[in-house]
Amino acid sequence: MVRTLYWEDGAAMILDQTKLPDELTYVKCIDTDMVAECIINMRIRGAPAIGIATAMGIALGAQPIRAEGYGDFVKDLESAYKTLLATRPTAVNIEWAVDRMKFFLENHKSEPVETLKKMLIEEAGKVLEEDIEINKAIGRYGVAFIKDGARILTHCNAGGLATGGYGTATAPMRTAHAEGKKIHVYADETRPLLQGARLTSWELKEDGIPVTLITDNCAGALMNRGEIDLVIVGTDRTARNGDVANKIGTYMVAVLAKENGIPFYVAAPTSSIDFSMPSGDMIPIEERAPEEVTMVYGKVSIAPEGISVRNLAFDVTPAKYVTAIITEKGVFRPEDLKNLDEEGADLEKFRL
Amino acid sequence: MVRTLYWEDGAAMILDQTKLPDELTYVKCIDTDMVAECIINMRIRGAPAIGIATAMGIALGAQPIRAEGYGDFVKDLESAYKTLLATRPTAVNIEWAVDRMKFFLENHKSEPVETLKKMLIEEAGKVLEEDIEINKAIGRYGVAFIKDGARILTHCNAGGLATGGYGTATAPMRTAHAEGKKIHVYADETRPLLQGARLTSWELKEDGIPVTLITDNCAGALMNRGEIDLVIVGTDRTARNGDVANKIGTYMVAVLAKENGIPFYVAAPTSSIDFSMPSGDMIPIEERAPEEVTMVYGKVSIAPEGISVRNLAFDVTPAKYVTAIITEKGVFRPEDLKNLDEEGADLEKFRL
Repeated sequence: MVRTLYWEDGAAMILDQTKLPDELTYVKCIDTDMVAECIINMRIRGAPAIGIATAMGIALGAQPIRAEGYGDFVKDLESAYKTLLATRPTAVNIEWAVDRMKFFLENHKSEPVETLKKMLIEEAGKVLEEDIEINKAIGRYGVAFIKDGARILTHCNAGGLATGGYGTATAPMRTAHAEGKKIHVYADETRPLLQGARLTSWELKEDGIPVTLITDNCAGALMNRGEIDLVIVGTDRTARNGDVANKIGTYMVAVLAKENGIPFYVAAPTSSIDFSMPSGDMIPIEERAPEEVTMVYGKVSIAPEGISVRNLAFDVTPAKYVTAIITEKGVFRPEDLKNLDEEGADLEKFRL
Repeated sequence: MVRTLYWEDGAAMILDQTKLPDELTYVKCIDTDMVAECIINMRIRGAPAIGIATAMGIALGAQPIRAEGYGDFVKDLESAYKTLLATRPTAVNIEWAVDRMKFFLENHKSEPVETLKKMLIEEAGKVLEEDIEINKAIGRYGVAFIKDGARILTHCNAGGLATGGYGTATAPMRTAHAEGKKIHVYADETRPLLQGARLTSWELKEDGIPVTLITDNCAGALMNRGEIDLVIVGTDRTARNGDVANKIGTYMVAVLAKENGIPFYVAAPTSSIDFSMPSGDMIPIEERAPEEVTMVYGKVSIAPEGISVRNLAFDVTPAKYVTAIITEKGVFRPEDLKNLDEEGADLEKFRL
């Protein structure tokens, strides 16, 4: 599996996913702004991956700071937080990564600034490594829902490319495949930016997992014809009540799954769950440029010039359509999420 | 409004819709095969339009026939029927047009062959003219469902370009607009061939009807946010029980509309209703080439080479999701359709 992002000689190497599947090139980011540019222009995307990139962007932002004391150092780092938090509004993982790095600094405030700078680089590396472990745990929990011969629908890319590796929605698929189960994945192409066509179908094919590409509007028909057994998607932010924000179109898939009696699973590392957000209707939904819709691949115009466009990047799937949420800590009913953030909550009690 | 197809100097002039909105060019069809090629490659598409094209293709097929007697003449015409019936399986209008032309010939079997040839050209012209009148009647019936300020979602192109002119799904919109009602149309782009982006948004914009283009996967989110008041789509074949075959994705729109309490109307000239087909699951569903999905606009590859693709061109929306069917003979509940083909059925009784 190709690496989504990694440290090399003190630079954050970010795979430029806008070029996939045609070219495999990395952007060498040497400062916070370069990381932010990659996030804004979706060279890197996927909630967990942009969380990791944020941690790296903060570590990069720390390096040139000349402050000598802790107080001045963290004050100077504020602009890096700001830059990264301003990139994209929907995925909670950016906020999560900022909070994590802040928390890390607070726990090490007695260290000299030069040591902190090195430690931030290491900590961002840990965020990356942990992410892969978290995804593997999601795979171990989620594989229980995948029978031999299962036909699985997914939307957008919540694969290895959306994470440090292994993926969230793809984790149960990879685990099932590794266990020798015969599975078949149907990948929604996911307009406008075609992450399903360009990324999901590519990474699964590369890894030898049978995959068929469909247009987004074909998913319902396949469900209605009895050709889909379950749905697994990722999430950019899941609210405390179990409402799930994810790539535009996820809501349609969820409603269709329910209508056709097909289970709808959300693979969500707990970093994607926003316990401070009571319900999904408060999640900020990013709207992006019309050109993403009218210029396919940034190359071919498919609509009349000057046409009006609505380009919502995400939608919210109400909890009632979600069968279960698969995290690295177990599988939960959406209505049980609210218990997970309680100090000392007995997770076992809430597991499915 | 631009003309979809017309007779000129004994040739069928067919607007090449694969070139829209960039180029406005007509294919000059001088024989049945050229018309069939236009239908197969979707230079002309839309159930009513390919019905008209079929009538023209039959008239063209008649011209070179050398038979002198009626019996030999109609026998020689069989190959034209065959060629046209083999083009695309889902729209019933091809069969309808073949039946109509056959019936016409039977009613004029005493005419000399040379007269019949001329009469077939005229009859195909009548099919075209009648189609426009039928659409205007659909507009008069359908406009009752459109309130001032209505936000209307449509899928694919059931507009003027899918018909002889005026359109089926667009007819109530055009009528409402002409009556001075302020409406706003949301056009699903309709992958893979983007008829919504290329055709619907283009023809409505040209005619001054406010229109916003969205990706197919955005329709549900807009409904859930309360931004859509009603849905109107066309149909390629509606079964006797009210099941509606239409462009892939229509089923998803219908389910989402029902889930969100939004009325879902089907504009269907009675030529699109197949009274011989008891239910929608018997309607043949065309599957088309993978390249339509993987090569956008036939120009840009958007997926890994050799990826497996399912490309269903149509889906079937069960009658239970259909609020009403708007025909040129009135508006009917889907469950009342079966009464329409009864000899002497009192249509008024079944009208909504």
